[in-house]
Amino acid sequence: MSLIKVSAQSRTAAVAGAIAGTYRDHGRVEIQAIGAGAVNQAIKAVVIAKGYLAEEGKAIVLVPSVVEVDIDGEDRTAIRLSVEPARNAA
Amino acid sequence: MSLIKVSAQSRTAAVAGAIAGTYRDHGRVEIQAIGAGAVNQAIKAVVIAKGYLAEEGKAIVLVPSVVEVDIDGEDRTAIRLSVEPARNAA
Repeated sequence: MSLIKVSAQSRTAAVAGAIAGTYRDHGRVEIQAIGAGAVNQAIKAVVIAKGYLAEEGKAIVLVPSVVEVDIDGEDRTAIRLSVEPARNAA
Repeated sequence: MSLIKVSAQSRTAAVAGAIAGTYRDHGRVEIQAIGAGAVNQAIKAVVIAKGYLAEEGKAIVLVPSVVEVDIDGEDRTAIRLSVEPARNAA
């Protein structure tokens, strides 16, 4: 599973490109963000990537979860956003 | 469509309860958040609500989008999170 780590300083356009590219290759992608600024950038990037993929006929959904991660020996709570194909029967 | 507005000061447990309750009643719910702190609270609340609903056998996914809203005469960009049933065939 590909994991894209997003920070508060990440550029949304660059992250969106990475999300769309990884999704095209693997059919899903996971995004990790720690802190409000990072979560906000991640969501904005997903919205942009969703637009790119929709143009190709690919509908995506997000499944959010929380994971504990070790950052420099410190436990941090990270938000994981799993980008998956929408299964909505049209 | 029910719309739950989340702020950076919203308590995640209270928002999670509102999300789960509205979802139970309507089968879907929309959440609106403006700003990084609000988006972060919204996502954390969705993760908690997802746990509540999973215990009842209800799997949910998120569909994020961006909308322009008028707040006190000022245009603001809001994140909308649509909580919908997962259609993943088990």
